[in-house]
Amino acid sequence: MSGYLGGHVSVALITDLYQLTMAYGYWKTKRHEQPSVFHLSFRTNPFRGGYAITAGLAPVLEALEGFRFSADDIEYLRTLRGNDHQPLFESEFLAYLTDLALSCDIDAIPEGTVVFPHEPLLRVEGPLLQCQILETFLLNGINFPTLIATGASRVCHAAEGDTVLEFGLRRAQGIDGAMTASRAAYIGGCDATSNVLAGKRYDIPIKGTHAHSWVMAFEDERESFQAYANAMPNNCIFLVDTYDSLNGVRNAISVAIELRNQGHEMIGIRLDSGDILSLSKQARVMLDEAGFSEAKIVASNDLDEHEIERLKRAGAEVDIWGVGTRLVTAYAQPALDGIYKLSAIGDSTGRWLDRLKLSEQPVKVSNPGIQQVRRFTSQGQAKADVIYDNRDVMGDTPRMMPFLCDPTASLRTVQCDGNWEYEDLLIPVLRQGRRVGTSPSLHQIRDRAATQLQMFSPDIRRLVDPLVYPTGLDPKLFAVKKKLVEAAPLQKTPG
Amino acid sequence: MSGYLGGHVSVALITDLYQLTMAYGYWKTKRHEQPSVFHLSFRTNPFRGGYAITAGLAPVLEALEGFRFSADDIEYLRTLRGNDHQPLFESEFLAYLTDLALSCDIDAIPEGTVVFPHEPLLRVEGPLLQCQILETFLLNGINFPTLIATGASRVCHAAEGDTVLEFGLRRAQGIDGAMTASRAAYIGGCDATSNVLAGKRYDIPIKGTHAHSWVMAFEDERESFQAYANAMPNNCIFLVDTYDSLNGVRNAISVAIELRNQGHEMIGIRLDSGDILSLSKQARVMLDEAGFSEAKIVASNDLDEHEIERLKRAGAEVDIWGVGTRLVTAYAQPALDGIYKLSAIGDSTGRWLDRLKLSEQPVKVSNPGIQQVRRFTSQGQAKADVIYDNRDVMGDTPRMMPFLCDPTASLRTVQCDGNWEYEDLLIPVLRQGRRVGTSPSLHQIRDRAATQLQMFSPDIRRLVDPLVYPTGLDPKLFAVKKKLVEAAPLQKTPG
Repeated sequence: MSGYLGGHVSVALITDLYQLTMAYGYWKTKRHEQPSVFHLSFRTNPFRGGYAITAGLAPVLEALEGFRFSADDIEYLRTLRGNDHQPLFESEFLAYLTDLALSCDIDAIPEGTVVFPHEPLLRVEGPLLQCQILETFLLNGINFPTLIATGASRVCHAAEGDTVLEFGLRRAQGIDGAMTASRAAYIGGCDATSNVLAGKRYDIPIKGTHAHSWVMAFEDERESFQAYANAMPNNCIFLVDTYDSLNGVRNAISVAIELRNQGHEMIGIRLDSGDILSLSKQARVMLDEAGFSEAKIVASNDLDEHEIERLKRAGAEVDIWGVGTRLVTAYAQPALDGIYKLSAIGDSTGRWLDRLKLSEQPVKVSNPGIQQVRRFTSQGQAKADVIYDNRDVMGDTPRMMPFLCDPTASLRTVQCDGNWEYEDLLIPVLRQGRRVGTSPSLHQIRDRAATQLQMFSPDIRRLVDPLVYPTGLDPKLFAVKKKLVEAAPLQKTPG
Repeated sequence: MSGYLGGHVSVALITDLYQLTMAYGYWKTKRHEQPSVFHLSFRTNPFRGGYAITAGLAPVLEALEGFRFSADDIEYLRTLRGNDHQPLFESEFLAYLTDLALSCDIDAIPEGTVVFPHEPLLRVEGPLLQCQILETFLLNGINFPTLIATGASRVCHAAEGDTVLEFGLRRAQGIDGAMTASRAAYIGGCDATSNVLAGKRYDIPIKGTHAHSWVMAFEDERESFQAYANAMPNNCIFLVDTYDSLNGVRNAISVAIELRNQGHEMIGIRLDSGDILSLSKQARVMLDEAGFSEAKIVASNDLDEHEIERLKRAGAEVDIWGVGTRLVTAYAQPALDGIYKLSAIGDSTGRWLDRLKLSEQPVKVSNPGIQQVRRFTSQGQAKADVIYDNRDVMGDTPRMMPFLCDPTASLRTVQCDGNWEYEDLLIPVLRQGRRVGTSPSLHQIRDRAATQLQMFSPDIRRLVDPLVYPTGLDPKLFAVKKKLVEAAPLQKTPG
């Protein structure tokens, strides 16, 4: 993949071994070119919230452009042994992989879109073997960024328009965990990152002034602030809590007065420990009284959306929020439950056979068919999403759509209004293995996310107990699913 | 860095912007070459456990070998603007960075060592500017792998010697989140991974057979098992829960009988949903009765150490545990609280000045000095760890050590026995910016972790409420710390 490290490397081995043993099995049984359709979706909104924001598509597509098994990859696969100590894969299969070029199609919901459980974020259609071996890479590439973009949008919601800075690199899950998180956090609404490489690679604004170690490198705090001010008079946000926060504020004010006399303005101060609520209020009073009412107060230290919401409600005098670990590791829920399921397979006559995965938990029964998501809107406000089968008449007569069936509660219906407008969310991004069009810029994606959120009731953004936005299966697709469940190859037998 | 993608890329920009603004400040105030000492440590054992296992060092050292600011990096830094829209960094400083070669020393506790809160995992000594700009990269490189190695060792402890497979790639936090996790999980005791690229790059055994989609690609389950058996007769672990788990077991047995007639043995079956306890017991009976008492039962599906412990105690008939999301994202605690603190700085006369960071929380007051960790053992069993200052006499007269002072509870002491043996844990790994010696192989590191754990009471491995292993500051260092706290530049003033 063309990752944060630059260069172009194959993604072919970024997969679970079972994708390759299944690929081998498909090839051995001559099913490898059987037409098939898989969908990538998630089952529950992350963080007990009311929505998710898609992210990760552009890096995935960029990586897929370089998809191939290198000679080196093949040599590694040749070394693998089965339980009988014989080569796991025969040479002819490895030759097949060597020559393999992607020829599948992908349709995707654009990055920065508000989405909901069970909606296909990606539809992958093509030869069974190809669709199968992409599974792990696609899940890895979409799950985590979508999680972080969603988390960031929650943090920004809590901050109510205040500036939010992402500071998470040091405790992120690996370098790429940090790079991916910085990109996704920006999509979700963060204003800047501390991560310099993310700034360089993704053109994200970067921010930062100094840490405790700066203060500790000097004999006393005031001297350290003064030295910083001398070096960078226009970049002063003094971190005031190395020894005592309020004394720190006094030292900052004293240096800010000198700065002002020299024609510069202190930007502000940063609080990184202690009782942010009380300290920020006291600092605000001190700054105002000293004539620095424009000076910003930055707060950091294990913040998340809930803590920011609590502080704002309690009247904390914070202008800028620095969020780190809890944002970039998605501390409250560090994984999205993304899945990738086969939903249709072509038989020898060219006919599609619908497929689903059963489960004792209804929410885990997958949806069949060749899916599309239609979003109905009225006066710019989203009203309902319908997952329907691309092959159904719905595409031609959308306004006939009478109601929605929630996949987990089939009695719940929504009456569609004939005057609603609509948009189909999945659009072609890969055809015959090649990209269609170009990816929007990161800034465009971020703007899209902001615009998308405006289309929904603010109630779906509530951090706790949000409104459930109406989504569901089109009745035709629901009927197909019901029939498949009833006709499943093997009925459940008593435990 | 020389990462999982191959190639050699500079790590210089894998940093927070404030490291560079501080570096600029040090340079402007001519402090950039001031001798300094920083330590990397963590404050609390992850997962409420009783220990951690170090990991991440070899990749960090490999990356540091390539440390430099590329022309491209410098050009990016030149584009940055301050609040006044003027260049953030002056050209002379950028020229200084261009020529910068690491000249610092690093001592580290080897990978695969059992460690405890406040112990320095790394000591970085050198010019202030260099030590400062490495902070973020070192934290990122050590925090996450240490977290995962620790988590894996807990999972393996719960599995009581059963085989543990790591399956987490699809839901990991980015590709590198997965690669780093696969490597660290292997160090912590996992037996294999599903991650093919990790297998290739790190020489970790890889495992995997098939997923639900294999079964769904066929008209019925038995046909799918049969086809898999035909393709790979010696690699059969049938996933039995696509439709109905016990019917799946029946189909697996029926195909296993055919396999046996052809001279092959089914390896086993896999359960990926439902009540693992009850299903595994029933499957075991069915397999035994059919003459497949050697067939293994693999369990997966949102497993973690607590669930494995519960299942084992309840008598689940599981031979192999597949752990994914919860292991590789450290679901229960997705970040280690690693810190990197300045602890001494050289003055103009060459004298070291001790430094600490104050905090209202005693656990957050950092330790001063130039630290080493001494581990006392008796008959191969670890008795206590002492953090002492390298400059103190302790190095010469270790057996004089009378007691330990816990950094958070100064009244708690441990009497040292004069007959105890000891080992100093930090060893040189970088001198004047160059590596000392070579890193052990991943297999050696994994063996070390296993051997290390044998040195400790099993009670520190308990998942819940483990024994607290005695660690603390040497009395001399404790006295220095106390004096520094009391003489701190600014005493706390009432809030």
